Amino acid sequence: METIKVGLIGYGTIGQGVIRLLRENEADITARLGARLALAGVADVDIDRPRKVKVKRGLLTTDPYRLINDPDVPIIVELVGDWPNVKKQVIDALRAGKSVVTANKALLAKHGDEIDRAAREAGQDVYYEAAVCGTIPIIRVLREGLAANRIEAVYGIVNGTCNYILTEMSAGRGDYADILAAAQQKGYAEARPEADVEGYDASHKLAILINLGFGVPVKLNQIHREGITRVTAGDIMAAKHLGYTIKLLAIAKRTPAGLEARVHPTLIPDSSTLASVNGVFNAVYVVGNMSGPTLYYGRGAGQDPTAAAVVADVMELARRILRGDPPRRLPSGAFRDGHRPDLKVLDVKQIETEYYLNMNVADRPGVLAQVAGALGKNQISIRTVIQRNREKGLEATIVIVTHRAREANMIKALAAFKSLKMVRGPVRMIRIENNI
Amino acid sequence: METIKVGLIGYGTIGQGVIRLLRENEADITARLGARLALAGVADVDIDRPRKVKVKRGLLTTDPYRLINDPDVPIIVELVGDWPNVKKQVIDALRAGKSVVTANKALLAKHGDEIDRAAREAGQDVYYEAAVCGTIPIIRVLREGLAANRIEAVYGIVNGTCNYILTEMSAGRGDYADILAAAQQKGYAEARPEADVEGYDASHKLAILINLGFGVPVKLNQIHREGITRVTAGDIMAAKHLGYTIKLLAIAKRTPAGLEARVHPTLIPDSSTLASVNGVFNAVYVVGNMSGPTLYYGRGAGQDPTAAAVVADVMELARRILRGDPPRRLPSGAFRDGHRPDLKVLDVKQIETEYYLNMNVADRPGVLAQVAGALGKNQISIRTVIQRNREKGLEATIVIVTHRAREANMIKALAAFKSLKMVRGPVRMIRIENNI
Repeated sequence: METIKVGLIGYGTIGQGVIRLLRENEADITARLGARLALAGVADVDIDRPRKVKVKRGLLTTDPYRLINDPDVPIIVELVGDWPNVKKQVIDALRAGKSVVTANKALLAKHGDEIDRAAREAGQDVYYEAAVCGTIPIIRVLREGLAANRIEAVYGIVNGTCNYILTEMSAGRGDYADILAAAQQKGYAEARPEADVEGYDASHKLAILINLGFGVPVKLNQIHREGITRVTAGDIMAAKHLGYTIKLLAIAKRTPAGLEARVHPTLIPDSSTLASVNGVFNAVYVVGNMSGPTLYYGRGAGQDPTAAAVVADVMELARRILRGDPPRRLPSGAFRDGHRPDLKVLDVKQIETEYYLNMNVADRPGVLAQVAGALGKNQISIRTVIQRNREKGLEATIVIVTHRAREANMIKALAAFKSLKMVRGPVRMIRIENNI
Repeated sequence: METIKVGLIGYGTIGQGVIRLLRENEADITARLGARLALAGVADVDIDRPRKVKVKRGLLTTDPYRLINDPDVPIIVELVGDWPNVKKQVIDALRAGKSVVTANKALLAKHGDEIDRAAREAGQDVYYEAAVCGTIPIIRVLREGLAANRIEAVYGIVNGTCNYILTEMSAGRGDYADILAAAQQKGYAEARPEADVEGYDASHKLAILINLGFGVPVKLNQIHREGITRVTAGDIMAAKHLGYTIKLLAIAKRTPAGLEARVHPTLIPDSSTLASVNGVFNAVYVVGNMSGPTLYYGRGAGQDPTAAAVVADVMELARRILRGDPPRRLPSGAFRDGHRPDLKVLDVKQIETEYYLNMNVADRPGVLAQVAGALGKNQISIRTVIQRNREKGLEATIVIVTHRAREANMIKALAAFKSLKMVRGPVRMIRIENNI
């Protein structure tokens, strides 16, 4: 039986998962490939730290180039995270005639074009199913399964840490800071949680999804990004009262004016399937002009689920190698250069949506008239208002849901609120998506 | 720019959808392929009946062999449904050096092995994404996306007609017969609905999913099949009272004894994501040993959604042809012959699950003891009993939820009920799946 050798760079959580999967599912993999996958070696800067998943000493190396330059290794799996020399290693592996599997979303979001070019020049493949939503095969779905569609919209719960925190807050188990601390203890959030909770990770994934679904090589600074750090338990309760759940969504939406690309906390109807995606699970809701709405759900992180996505890519490369076919089955961005659609990424000021507003105001007659006036002057009409006393006669809370409005106008209205003395403290604004 | 010609056999609803999609999404398809897809011709037994989607007269033919034997046509799309000569046409197309895209689940479920063999001998591909769950790319998911997993279980809502009827019954809009009649009026059910409501269509799809997910070439008569015709509004209400929703599920489950393969109405917990899949939508819940639970959701039928799945397959073939690669990227069953796992399909008597029972009994003391006795004698223990008077002093209804039991024992218990005089009429039994 033929054997395909795989070189692994990165002996961390996911790397160990890959090694274990190759062992535990060996018979299953062989049944599908008609050949074996064998670990050629594992490179890591630290090979002495004890790991749960052991590897024979002879397979371990601190020099990734022992694998990158090994002529018997056609596939390199890169799982080292966001290190400075990763890009060089990936490009060097391609130039050395290897195809590469990576789970590195930051690398792809920042340097995807450069890596794609290197792969094309080297005549090799770069696969990255594990980079977005862990085990959910969303890359294949956009690149192949829904390929006959004009993609109209993508709405993704793509960050498990944020979804866990918001789920716990929705269950009334505390405010943001408490739950973040608990999540850090459980290992669901990093000690330095900014990449997750500030929406950076989600915007990296959205950049990849946009490239695949819409053919637009969007830059990270073209994606409007807000994290979940300012969502309060009060917002979640007010949203619930209105029939909404708050989720951090990565949104890409085709409009007549261009492409909306944004990551932010979002009110979605309780009846939406996405509203029932809880805890560390991920889901992506994709609307095609022919397929209509579709949804993909599964674990977005974790050792085994992520390893399963990595090895699925390795198997696809192995099948190609076993057939003796040339690489480059598809450009990694799914669209052909020279044929990319002319779709402009909109500034967030140009988007249109409904809004939720939550503000503390003086509990005096006339305050609602002032607030409504500031909205009306900016062409924003109100769908619902809920006013609640907080401290009798002193302060009240006003919650407003608007009709569809332009973000540029909302920005003006928010500025106008600042000059209203009866509005106390900052007004919290969260966007709403009603059609999912 | 290069052009790939596509020959279409079948000018019905889906065929027209394919033609319209190729026109409406032409620019999008070209952007992804870097080439054009062109309709070479459309064959149908009746080309005179007026259609909504028109085709130039010169492209129409009543002779499919004009396309099958056209050397300029590398891809044949077969969308004629369950006609007797379809198998021959597909095999002839393969032998004539074409790759084939089909949505014909009955053909694949009954003759998949023969067609696969013909494709292999001819060195051509057969793609069939549209055959299962319409627009949901579940074939690619099982063949590629989850390929690194040992698949533990598949639970599918794969028949839109049944799901529509059960959804309407759950909403209290009538009993089975009324809703079937309404569904027929709306076009959601056929005038001769047996293929759907008796579970034949679902078992065809399950056979395909089992072949892909478990590597077992299951025969249709190995799949236990029950339709929805005996589910009553009373069952649905009793299930709701117990926290369950009734769905027609196609189930494949790996157990230590072998593979369970069954299609039947099933009580699933209201909290299950599958319970919220309503109307004509389909969804498949797949559990991999590494990925864990994943879910795929979308329209399982309809002109546009099905056409999108057909054209996605055409595009994948076109990409391969444009690259100049040889066919046979994968065996259509995903597993290599000679490496198929040794997994026995279990008889339904061998399965183990929980059960719901609903029976009319005489409203007399001792009846529950008799019923419980018949279960106990067959090693079936009771989790919940609800007893309700129907006509005071005359008849009562007993609803029972059992603990996990063996179907062989349940069959004996059902036989024992028949000899109990206090049990009136047939006992309705519906299986439960609690772990989804």
